[in-house]
Amino acid sequence: MGERAGRRIILIGFSTTGKSVVGQAVAARLGWQFVDIDDEIARRAGKSIPDIFALEGEAGFRQRERDVIRKTLRRDDIVVATGGGAVIDADNRDLFGRSGMVLCLEARPETIYNRLKKAIEESGDKAVRPLLEVEDPLARIREIKASRQPLYALADFTVHTDDLPVEQVINEAVRAWHVWESTRQRSAVKGLVPAATVATATESYPVYVEWRLRRDLGKLLSGAGLTGTANLVSDEKVFAIYGREIGRIFKEAGHRVNSLTLPAGEATKSFASAMKIYDFLVGKRVERGDFILALGGGVISDLAGFAAATYLRGISFAIMPTSLVGMVDASVGGKVAVNHPQGKNLIGAFYQPRLVMADVQTLTTLPEREFRSGWAEVIKHGLILDAALVDHLQESAGHLLALNPEALTAAISRSAAIKAAVVSQDEKETGIRTLLNYGHTIAHGLEAANGYKGLLHSEAVAIGMTGAALISQKLGLLSAAKVRRQRQLLEKFGLPVSVSGIDADAVLKAMELDKKVRNKSIRWVLLTDIGQAVVRNDVPREVVHETVSKLVRS
Amino acid sequence: MGERAGRRIILIGFSTTGKSVVGQAVAARLGWQFVDIDDEIARRAGKSIPDIFALEGEAGFRQRERDVIRKTLRRDDIVVATGGGAVIDADNRDLFGRSGMVLCLEARPETIYNRLKKAIEESGDKAVRPLLEVEDPLARIREIKASRQPLYALADFTVHTDDLPVEQVINEAVRAWHVWESTRQRSAVKGLVPAATVATATESYPVYVEWRLRRDLGKLLSGAGLTGTANLVSDEKVFAIYGREIGRIFKEAGHRVNSLTLPAGEATKSFASAMKIYDFLVGKRVERGDFILALGGGVISDLAGFAAATYLRGISFAIMPTSLVGMVDASVGGKVAVNHPQGKNLIGAFYQPRLVMADVQTLTTLPEREFRSGWAEVIKHGLILDAALVDHLQESAGHLLALNPEALTAAISRSAAIKAAVVSQDEKETGIRTLLNYGHTIAHGLEAANGYKGLLHSEAVAIGMTGAALISQKLGLLSAAKVRRQRQLLEKFGLPVSVSGIDADAVLKAMELDKKVRNKSIRWVLLTDIGQAVVRNDVPREVVHETVSKLVRS
Repeated sequence: MGERAGRRIILIGFSTTGKSVVGQAVAARLGWQFVDIDDEIARRAGKSIPDIFALEGEAGFRQRERDVIRKTLRRDDIVVATGGGAVIDADNRDLFGRSGMVLCLEARPETIYNRLKKAIEESGDKAVRPLLEVEDPLARIREIKASRQPLYALADFTVHTDDLPVEQVINEAVRAWHVWESTRQRSAVKGLVPAATVATATESYPVYVEWRLRRDLGKLLSGAGLTGTANLVSDEKVFAIYGREIGRIFKEAGHRVNSLTLPAGEATKSFASAMKIYDFLVGKRVERGDFILALGGGVISDLAGFAAATYLRGISFAIMPTSLVGMVDASVGGKVAVNHPQGKNLIGAFYQPRLVMADVQTLTTLPEREFRSGWAEVIKHGLILDAALVDHLQESAGHLLALNPEALTAAISRSAAIKAAVVSQDEKETGIRTLLNYGHTIAHGLEAANGYKGLLHSEAVAIGMTGAALISQKLGLLSAAKVRRQRQLLEKFGLPVSVSGIDADAVLKAMELDKKVRNKSIRWVLLTDIGQAVVRNDVPREVVHETVSKLVRS
Repeated sequence: MGERAGRRIILIGFSTTGKSVVGQAVAARLGWQFVDIDDEIARRAGKSIPDIFALEGEAGFRQRERDVIRKTLRRDDIVVATGGGAVIDADNRDLFGRSGMVLCLEARPETIYNRLKKAIEESGDKAVRPLLEVEDPLARIREIKASRQPLYALADFTVHTDDLPVEQVINEAVRAWHVWESTRQRSAVKGLVPAATVATATESYPVYVEWRLRRDLGKLLSGAGLTGTANLVSDEKVFAIYGREIGRIFKEAGHRVNSLTLPAGEATKSFASAMKIYDFLVGKRVERGDFILALGGGVISDLAGFAAATYLRGISFAIMPTSLVGMVDASVGGKVAVNHPQGKNLIGAFYQPRLVMADVQTLTTLPEREFRSGWAEVIKHGLILDAALVDHLQESAGHLLALNPEALTAAISRSAAIKAAVVSQDEKETGIRTLLNYGHTIAHGLEAANGYKGLLHSEAVAIGMTGAALISQKLGLLSAAKVRRQRQLLEKFGLPVSVSGIDADAVLKAMELDKKVRNKSIRWVLLTDIGQAVVRNDVPREVVHETVSKLVRS
């Protein structure tokens, strides 16, 4: 991720979501300029958009669009409304992300249809008419919108405009800017730029992803306002490698630090461990101005985060993830939890860290199997939301598995940014965040049936994704070729796509209690394409049984 | 609390907080009328405010002000800016509360001073000059403002204007209105009006206080959108009295219900009990659409609320408080927790219920000692924020202790409304909510030293308040007569003001770990008057030692 110097808001979204009206009003409020890219293209070309299409084809128009976007985004203090199709171009998307805050205005297909219809009825505007002259225009809108959804999903903020008066959409947009800007200022630590920013309704924090980032621990913590006593919670294996060095870095930075280590492994993610952390914190007289630093993988950050969320009704915490899963998944998004004997993560909270610092170099000391398995989560991010990331993983697998610093840092930054964007839009998992559970329904069943032994979580997710893809195929959502492509990618990273020694019935029974169960029917995340997912709760029991039986051999 | 029918915003606050500018802009945005009460008084009188003061004295002005306020607040769709002194009149305050949303614009004394100075320099406005012509005008502003602070604190919402551009103050005001209005609509259950509304940054919910409210349980829960399976968590004593009836009410309302009872008493507020609740919820396959209903006193609502906050990362919960402390304190504000062996409430969260339903009639079955002790919290609300409530308690003690339905419902409604207003302004206890800890520093020390036995929590608070008043006196903040008045009021309700059989040193040691400790110095809530509190962290150790020694006799 490059440097984001300018004060710029880039509005993306489908037709009729109000980009021009909102953009103009936001610019007026902030005292900035407003540019509508389509208008600017026409102005510079000296001819109308339809004429450009007619004379130069879509390719000609897109070239002009790219040029105008590039020129416009060199200016500062500017709100830019982009055309509905501008996000399709990867270079444009990349430039948007590097130039300022990307804000998506959203609306449901029904809303868009009604607005278009009304606009046509009222104004007789011919420019929008083609959309409604096709057969079943609503289905057509749905289709185009679904194909662009993953691109929209990567905005820094999203405002759902369906039920809001335009005045409130403008308010939300201005508020989003203030949140984004203040986070950016707070996280501006000399020489370091966050790979992503998580911004929920009430909080925001940066995610740094860099090679050998631990050297900058002190200034990153101070930059985030974490100046009290650090309470390092780690596992024995990680602490044995990095404990002494981290201690020295803290000392040099003039930071007081207490340390607690716990056994490595999933069994540590328990209530008993949470109690140990509470006893440790009480013993050290830890107060509200102090903080917890979780140093380790997802087990440690979930557990230490849960303790931080509940000690004195919540103290600050920061995460230094040392596993691949930790960097791209567990550390981003504030899901903290411990396991209950009857199911994983049944006890927990949504509690956001103040700062995530991923030192990519720590992956060099991660056990081979954990490192390989972590790619399941990176691949998952691509499968559900970003076809370009899937392409990239397919091409760079060799470099990535060989721990090439640049390739690793880039792929992890991208994956963490996808997670951050999803969480920013839906902290509490009432909407798009559900997609991140792709592969997890079967995975949790596998893990519970297996007593959380034998399989690593990400390995279970790889098998679960294989199952979910098969279900997608059986429901006619996904082609056999794409199911095969997913399987081959997983295998390329050495991930399992089936498992033996587990009883299928036990897996199915455990799935019933999985916490994604809602109103007694399981909500399945399925694929409709590489890079595009949907939620379905109408998967027949037989299809699930048949699929799970294929995946496991007892 | 009467009915709040109109769509009205009443702006209160000190001079220069922007009531007129903000009021006009908010009215324009909402498409409402704007009335500045001072302008309206002058218009109707046909003479200027200074002339009214000169000819009719302050009494004449206040009479005109009351009349204009009464007439103006009969209109709908209106934003009203009140004069800085209008809130001093108890009738005006009462009318504001019943007429619409009361919004306070706040500013620090330094900000007010600078704004006044700038206004005078720029405009040469003589009307504001007197304030700045006194000796040490900043001190004078501080003094006037401090005397009105408790009145301002009772607004439904407060916006701190110091560092905000006016545009954002307007946004916040409009946002507050939408939150307030949507909560009011959601909680409009036929024939029932909430005694108070808690509205934090992200959530809002009603607090109902009525005699025999349990008959309306079904419609209140449905009205709050709680339609899944109810999971009743109660203590054995309360369940023995109300369990069967509540079960029948649920059945009649067509609600599915599971029940869990736990032993009565503070020892139940433990991790072991939280585990029992988790096991119960897992066993009943409770899902995200279901909810917990806490039926009991503060122990049950704190514990069940903690379980609700952490099961599946948070499920909904509602509270039916059956103790006086539960009604005015524990159920309002979302502080949920369990105790750690080393201290009370050390493990917990901020997690708001969806609904609080206080059936005042259940107090008739509360053990005498618990009922009496509960008045400590009601008295506390008066002592720190509402001198009028203290007067009222002093006059009505007989009626209240005799369980008179009207007197009880009125006093509890008022006390719960104070708590709700404080929590709405400061959910996470970073500001004014701290005042609610009056008496609690010593109380927690007493309880911990005593192993949470012997003293009821509210009794400990009564003794703690006695100590805090003595400390206030020793620091020269409070007169001996007012310390005596507080003591006499506590005694009138049969509350203890000292205790024997506890070791003073043990109390002092336990206070050190109390979670209100911050940066190693204890933050004391002290009184400067009846109805007015401050936070101080400069109380000398000797003063504390001397005071605690006076309160306890080992």
